Amino acid sequence: MSFEKQSRNILEKAGIEINGSKPWDIQVNNKRIYQKVFSKGSLGLGESYMDGDWDCKSVDQFFYKILSTNLDKHFEYSIPSLINIAKAKIMNLQKPTRATQIGKHHYDIGNDLYQAMLDQRMTYTCAYWDWGANNLDIAQEDKLELTCLKINLNERKGDRVLDIGGGWGSFARFASENHGAIVKAITVSEEQVTLGKKLTKEYPDIEIAFQDYRDLDNNDKFDHIVSLGMFEHVGVKNYKTYFKKVSDLLNEDGLFLLHTIGSNESHSTIDPWISKYIFPNSMLPSQKQIAEASEGIFIEEDSHNLSTNYDKTLMAWHENISNSWDKLKSSEYDNRFKRMWEYYILSCAGTFRARKMQIWQKVFSKEGVQGGYQSIR
Amino acid sequence: MSFEKQSRNILEKAGIEINGSKPWDIQVNNKRIYQKVFSKGSLGLGESYMDGDWDCKSVDQFFYKILSTNLDKHFEYSIPSLINIAKAKIMNLQKPTRATQIGKHHYDIGNDLYQAMLDQRMTYTCAYWDWGANNLDIAQEDKLELTCLKINLNERKGDRVLDIGGGWGSFARFASENHGAIVKAITVSEEQVTLGKKLTKEYPDIEIAFQDYRDLDNNDKFDHIVSLGMFEHVGVKNYKTYFKKVSDLLNEDGLFLLHTIGSNESHSTIDPWISKYIFPNSMLPSQKQIAEASEGIFIEEDSHNLSTNYDKTLMAWHENISNSWDKLKSSEYDNRFKRMWEYYILSCAGTFRARKMQIWQKVFSKEGVQGGYQSIR
Repeated sequence: MSFEKQSRNILEKAGIEINGSKPWDIQVNNKRIYQKVFSKGSLGLGESYMDGDWDCKSVDQFFYKILSTNLDKHFEYSIPSLINIAKAKIMNLQKPTRATQIGKHHYDIGNDLYQAMLDQRMTYTCAYWDWGANNLDIAQEDKLELTCLKINLNERKGDRVLDIGGGWGSFARFASENHGAIVKAITVSEEQVTLGKKLTKEYPDIEIAFQDYRDLDNNDKFDHIVSLGMFEHVGVKNYKTYFKKVSDLLNEDGLFLLHTIGSNESHSTIDPWISKYIFPNSMLPSQKQIAEASEGIFIEEDSHNLSTNYDKTLMAWHENISNSWDKLKSSEYDNRFKRMWEYYILSCAGTFRARKMQIWQKVFSKEGVQGGYQSIR
Repeated sequence: MSFEKQSRNILEKAGIEINGSKPWDIQVNNKRIYQKVFSKGSLGLGESYMDGDWDCKSVDQFFYKILSTNLDKHFEYSIPSLINIAKAKIMNLQKPTRATQIGKHHYDIGNDLYQAMLDQRMTYTCAYWDWGANNLDIAQEDKLELTCLKINLNERKGDRVLDIGGGWGSFARFASENHGAIVKAITVSEEQVTLGKKLTKEYPDIEIAFQDYRDLDNNDKFDHIVSLGMFEHVGVKNYKTYFKKVSDLLNEDGLFLLHTIGSNESHSTIDPWISKYIFPNSMLPSQKQIAEASEGIFIEEDSHNLSTNYDKTLMAWHENISNSWDKLKSSEYDNRFKRMWEYYILSCAGTFRARKMQIWQKVFSKEGVQGGYQSIR
């Protein structure tokens, strides 16, 4: 059977028609897509989208349908995936000398892009819609407040907080404004440091630093530590090091809030397309990998699964960015970049919607909170 | 240095004085206690308490002090512990042919004892005090309601629920009365079946059965499944079987609520005194062991750590039972039994207070709740 025929048969199982008229149907512009997908799996699917070989009115719905019927299993062991797995098993993709690659590759793309896409505070992690927010700005503030409340910042002014992977200082500013916290935010993106420092220059209690978490000084202790959307770049080989480092930096009665995307199964690699074009040297942890690495170092006080909140967040980012392409400098963000970015945002939205990725907020303590930890939802 | 001198030095580190006057100090009645503790570890400590070799006004505070200063580590590798670990590694202590041993040994001790100790509904698991309950009856109803709400029983009448380890039918009655649920509760204790059937005879929608979870028929599906305080008897060798079985019995969009005591570290055995006198063939799971066994079968939607609620529950049980010893038949529950029971209840209270054991309510779904799962606290 031809690759085209096979594709048609497979997609049919998810209710997707080639050249159909539903929003999740795909329009094939160049038949080389079939060869690409069969030889390169998800990498080929993404690349052929970037090349304009196919279109889809609603890429998120396309992915939701593919994933919720488990059609992706057909392509699981494509050759590029195997190379990725082998690379991750042999090398430490997140060792200190490589730590800043992710900063350069992804977070330094251009602050104008992120300013166009994100909320007013520039929070590049999952927002919280479950409190009823009806727009992204509110949903991100709700997430920041949820985070502050989970580490009890409302109970005392002047707590010193470390934010590992602090982005443009969004959490730092919110925690300082609303709870009088003193925050050090570290990142491995130079662009984030530059803009972050600008945005927080009126805040004497905020420090934004270009620093790898492993380089922090253990003598400099914090009341609480948060890490929002950075653990995805740590790598399973470094999880134990990471938890140990966080513990070393945390006061005895402090809380650590880990906010991370998670995988339903334990792997040491990520989707090959995402790895090549969006997040190099990254991987998603499983519950088991987190439990294994944190055992003997931390006690898990709470674990909140916010997965579908990310679907809504990504769709809001997509709406923002869709409205802004014309304003963004066309020389830097050409059509291929635009299609890549769109594909990244929408395929992730569909994946969260199908519940094939999770997002967790986990709160840890070193010895167990005396009298018990009270969480919120 | 004599064992007595060594003991005095060790206990001093936790602020405990031999023959002192504080509630957590111990009164030594027979000096053979020292030899017993040094040769038999925690088993010797418990047995010498049962034998009346020592007393303590507040055994729970004694344990809290020992554990919160990590003094227990001095006795960790006593010989009886090693025998227990070896036994657990070689044998499947919880295989089907042994499944009813725990019923006979623990849950069949005598319904009069449990009636004296527990709340009015006879709920033999951790109560929920965080909603402000000021007595055990309310705290247990709050726990039952919390459990019902977490599996969405309030959203629809007539849901069919399986309760694995259903005790005397406490959850079944509450869920039937308050949410119109149809409940099958299984237990491996004959005494629980006898009294459970009596207590639910006016409830046509409740079935109480003497049955091992592995013997349930996969063709008989449930809307939701709960298991409150039974997983501690499953054993790590059977965790995968257990999760698989629960999944087989659960409708595709059903929820599974697992309520279990947990260990901070992964072991395959339990404290040797508890194992010999209270819960044979039992062990406490770690986060890692649960995550490992449930991976690929379930998605964790929520994890709630209620540990200090168990401290309060155990202290309420202790108060109830203390007031009832005179009424309980002295022939069945002699002084040695009374001391054993008291030691069990109070040492566990101190252990939860020191956060050395956890209690988790985890909610799982098979494929992820579409649209997201909303939990409560």
